[in-house]
Amino acid sequence: MQFTKMNGLGNDFVIVFGEQQLPANAAELAIATCNRYFGVGADGLVYILPSTQADFMMRIINSDGSEAEQCGNAIRCVAKYVSDRGYVSGDELTIETLGAGVQRVQLNKVDGVVTTVRVDMGKPILQGLQVPTTIDQETIVNHPIEVEGTTFHFTAVSMGNPHCVIYVDDAKVFDFNTWGPKLEVHPLFPRKTNVEFVSIRSRDYTDMRVWERGAGPTLACGTGACATLVASVLNGKTDRAATVSLAGGDLFIEWNEEDGHVYMTGPSEMVYDGTWLK
Amino acid sequence: MQFTKMNGLGNDFVIVFGEQQLPANAAELAIATCNRYFGVGADGLVYILPSTQADFMMRIINSDGSEAEQCGNAIRCVAKYVSDRGYVSGDELTIETLGAGVQRVQLNKVDGVVTTVRVDMGKPILQGLQVPTTIDQETIVNHPIEVEGTTFHFTAVSMGNPHCVIYVDDAKVFDFNTWGPKLEVHPLFPRKTNVEFVSIRSRDYTDMRVWERGAGPTLACGTGACATLVASVLNGKTDRAATVSLAGGDLFIEWNEEDGHVYMTGPSEMVYDGTWLK
Repeated sequence: MQFTKMNGLGNDFVIVFGEQQLPANAAELAIATCNRYFGVGADGLVYILPSTQADFMMRIINSDGSEAEQCGNAIRCVAKYVSDRGYVSGDELTIETLGAGVQRVQLNKVDGVVTTVRVDMGKPILQGLQVPTTIDQETIVNHPIEVEGTTFHFTAVSMGNPHCVIYVDDAKVFDFNTWGPKLEVHPLFPRKTNVEFVSIRSRDYTDMRVWERGAGPTLACGTGACATLVASVLNGKTDRAATVSLAGGDLFIEWNEEDGHVYMTGPSEMVYDGTWLK
Repeated sequence: MQFTKMNGLGNDFVIVFGEQQLPANAAELAIATCNRYFGVGADGLVYILPSTQADFMMRIINSDGSEAEQCGNAIRCVAKYVSDRGYVSGDELTIETLGAGVQRVQLNKVDGVVTTVRVDMGKPILQGLQVPTTIDQETIVNHPIEVEGTTFHFTAVSMGNPHCVIYVDDAKVFDFNTWGPKLEVHPLFPRKTNVEFVSIRSRDYTDMRVWERGAGPTLACGTGACATLVASVLNGKTDRAATVSLAGGDLFIEWNEEDGHVYMTGPSEMVYDGTWLK
């Protein structure tokens, strides 16, 4: 098996191109290749497949063998791969995903090489029960939430998955390992939640650290960065376009006033080509 | 840069063959390639170089850019690499190392492919001050050591680095994350110590979990497995040859009665070939 190792802000993938369909042993291969000591080491195994509705289809098998519906970091890797390797030309392409249908992405290039990819992440869901939270309100902005006697204030945003955005003095040093897991399972969130700790540097720049539902601390979370920008607009803290700086690097997020969609622009990189020997 | 990813019981390395000498930027390359999210991901970058004293020289650059003097898991990878790729023939070869001089290794093959490698790990050092501990005795066997009101009994063995071997009911479930770091820095060990928690299944089979000095829990520690067998002979718990079963797999250890050397036999595997693109 030939593959290319890529990452989007440190969220890393084994990229396989050329198969006509998902192999029957994809789950088994994902578990073997994603192992960081006995395999390649990655967060997921990504197949770039033919599509009848889009330029390509992307299937993401997680390191535990389950399938992911969508991933904002993986789609940037796929877009750079097919463009840099010459399988598409132009500055736009469409990628079919399992959970988010056909996604249109824009490619930013320097000397023909993709540097960043802009992805339409869709409309945020703000209605409380739909996020979901247990609170039936049109929006949940700066709402108190108590954990073990400490009161935080959160803003609830769904980008297809629930997010609990909390402002702190300095996200880079905040003890999110203590509070993240407690907020993740707070009874206000019936399907648990991702938790973003955010501090504002200016109207167009924020720092964010994420505690991902089911995964804990990660270097980058695309939907979390989108939720951060939406929450910051709702709280009057930033303009509708801002950089969200994460542990793995920066994402530029826009919440478009006309179509209501959130657009995420960020880098992806190729690290090496490989031939699996096991 | 072309490389091959290999591991010995999960202790994993980026193997580079073909350079005439250590590149000037080896430390920088090790830091970049060993990164598990933005690089290849490995415990070390290993160069197989020409030698005037042996068949090859091995240089190991750790993931922090420092150089390791020796590594029992890496040398098995190097031996398999040069044999399987046809750079040597026969069942023995010599490898020059920075810290342990020229090491002679034996290759066990099936259908011409190396399955396990037997490495001469030298003589154990048992004199208390030389291990080093603060106790001036010829051997330190089953000696009490107190940590926060709990008394363990340890046997001290140096294999070039200090080891504190402690017998427990079941090494596989013992809470070594609590006791390992406390024993590592116990004042009885002036240069700190590796800590092995060992349980005996039979005269020729033991389970061991290791807390490595400076590294914490690891999947496998070759010198720790050797120290375990030596301690088990000194305590009358095993014969002079036994399997030591670690989290990453099994090592077969012999303490030869004639030459007093310890011999370690274990597997290594090739996982993939790669071409670095960054």
